[in-house]
Amino acid sequence: MTERIRTFLATAQPESPCLIVDLEVVRENYRLLKASMPDTAIYYAIKANPDPAVLAVLNEEGANFDCASLQEIRDVMTLGIEPGSISYSNTIKKERDIAAAFQLGIRLFAFDCRAELEKLARSAPGSDVICRILTDGAGADWPLSRKFGCTKEHAIMLLQMAAERGLTPRGVSFHVGSQQTNADGWDTAIADAADIFRSLKAAGTPLDLLNLGGGFPTRFLNDIPEVALIARNIDASLKRHFGNDLPRTIAEPGRGLVGSAGIIKAEVVLIADNDEKASERWVYLDIGKFGGLAETMDEAIRYPITTRHNGAPAAPAILAGPTCDSVDVMYEKTPYPLPEALAIGDEVLIESTGAYTATYSSVGFNGFAPLKTYAV
Amino acid sequence: MTERIRTFLATAQPESPCLIVDLEVVRENYRLLKASMPDTAIYYAIKANPDPAVLAVLNEEGANFDCASLQEIRDVMTLGIEPGSISYSNTIKKERDIAAAFQLGIRLFAFDCRAELEKLARSAPGSDVICRILTDGAGADWPLSRKFGCTKEHAIMLLQMAAERGLTPRGVSFHVGSQQTNADGWDTAIADAADIFRSLKAAGTPLDLLNLGGGFPTRFLNDIPEVALIARNIDASLKRHFGNDLPRTIAEPGRGLVGSAGIIKAEVVLIADNDEKASERWVYLDIGKFGGLAETMDEAIRYPITTRHNGAPAAPAILAGPTCDSVDVMYEKTPYPLPEALAIGDEVLIESTGAYTATYSSVGFNGFAPLKTYAV
Repeated sequence: MTERIRTFLATAQPESPCLIVDLEVVRENYRLLKASMPDTAIYYAIKANPDPAVLAVLNEEGANFDCASLQEIRDVMTLGIEPGSISYSNTIKKERDIAAAFQLGIRLFAFDCRAELEKLARSAPGSDVICRILTDGAGADWPLSRKFGCTKEHAIMLLQMAAERGLTPRGVSFHVGSQQTNADGWDTAIADAADIFRSLKAAGTPLDLLNLGGGFPTRFLNDIPEVALIARNIDASLKRHFGNDLPRTIAEPGRGLVGSAGIIKAEVVLIADNDEKASERWVYLDIGKFGGLAETMDEAIRYPITTRHNGAPAAPAILAGPTCDSVDVMYEKTPYPLPEALAIGDEVLIESTGAYTATYSSVGFNGFAPLKTYAV
Repeated sequence: MTERIRTFLATAQPESPCLIVDLEVVRENYRLLKASMPDTAIYYAIKANPDPAVLAVLNEEGANFDCASLQEIRDVMTLGIEPGSISYSNTIKKERDIAAAFQLGIRLFAFDCRAELEKLARSAPGSDVICRILTDGAGADWPLSRKFGCTKEHAIMLLQMAAERGLTPRGVSFHVGSQQTNADGWDTAIADAADIFRSLKAAGTPLDLLNLGGGFPTRFLNDIPEVALIARNIDASLKRHFGNDLPRTIAEPGRGLVGSAGIIKAEVVLIADNDEKASERWVYLDIGKFGGLAETMDEAIRYPITTRHNGAPAAPAILAGPTCDSVDVMYEKTPYPLPEALAIGDEVLIESTGAYTATYSSVGFNGFAPLKTYAV
């Protein structure tokens, strides 16, 4: 909880639920990451939080932008950001969207299979392309899967093919999984990338760009490695695996820049006691899985929660959202300790919710409006 | 696929992805249910699909409306529907929303715990109230949980308390789970309700209204029981458990009225072969979990899918959505058989998607727009 957010809540008294983002925290997170990785170009993964005020602050700080769709590219360019600062990193793109992005001046694209490469060769001729490889995501709270990336062998073949098709093969990308809490979690993927760089150099198609992806964690309930430690480890991995032939690097942080900058203000709508439910106490909030807290799916992410009763005796509660949907339950397998004195109408602050909340919210499931964002 | 939808797709050629709802199918579904349960008042659960054209058709047919939030009540009343035809059946309501609904003329509310009852006594004085009891949801594809409903013992106590607080205890509700495919799935809950009716009568607080909830299934890949069979079984259960002292009944179908009326038009964005992925073939559509197909969560619902290659040899595919999110994968544990000849750009029709799709879609995750609905 920052002083700026505290002041905003006290003076504006916004209707619950809502997300408040402290732009100065976004700025600090960016500066800290940039200071820790001075030689790495930062491409903010705007899907984490595309609020225009967030984009504006990061643009002021000199960030680049990683977009997942044509609409995100348009949104970024509307703010006056140059296409040269934008990558189109989703490996799943309609060919007409590739063509439209190319028209807008985008020249940096990701791909991970032959069919996507052929689309790029046809509709973004000459562009810089990066091949995404599979990683195992071990150590991440929100691991990625085989959905993205190809095998090392295919990356070598596809990058050569890119050159033959008139594209400019620049390098390799990977993603170690969102909310990666192992400070060494980047090492294996960097080693794989170095193998590919060596193979391509031997084949006469040298690469020069390594995209380290995202995964930079934000603090929830448990301690996470400092960004400076992650940066030192990445640096050591690069030297270990690439030797003196270091590539240029880019990174695509999302959560790491905005997660800790946001707090959701929610309200206790109802409490049913354990007697009535023949189970734990049930606490129902005015926000749930469909209102912005989708990352509680499978109880993957456990947000810090504070109330006016902080420090008072706590007892376990099952935490659920306000919809008539039975899957709209956030913490049930591992109930959440909440104050025994918690009462209906109490304000509940859900911390570290600056990323992957507002845009995850449903357009109006059960008639509940999407999560509103206030940037302060 | 109906002729009306086929014609619309051929003539309007709407941009993909989108949902097309055939209003005449909604009408037929309503008439069939009403004919099967002539003595039951039908309250359409508008959360399943609140499209104004759907509501208008059901209003023409004489349906009542089950609302999950104050906003849904307002949306229904905007169409000129009288508050006497509306129930506020979510058991989780802010007290200020109860008060606003009461102001609008709503007089039928559900509750399932003491705290909610006290809100109703204060903010909806004199209203009809229905107590929701726990059921086990066995046989449902999308089972409900302990999130809703109280034990039988509490229902008896709370309904008596309702009378003491100046409310009008009318009866009991339950929900046997969405997409209930066991035609006898209502029997246990009806037996429990009859016990409560007898206890309350003995205590001098007779009840007269039994809310049978929803759960009426729609056809996906497997056969489901006919609505007439479900209706006959419910009728038999009522006679078995209530004897000659039959209550009035209401039902709250959602999916059962609109599920089969909708088809999503989607498009194949990318196909990665099994070699590249070192796994099954991956097929990526322009719609996924965050674009309206949230009910594929845990692969709960398996939609029928048709393409122009119908009947051609098929091979398993992992089906995924277009976002950069690794959980945006629909069928992976049990891959989906899709034509070997399926190609990028092919139209894919996802059937029985009239319920729980458009309003589930995210407000703009990854920049992708919410699912658009066309009612024809």
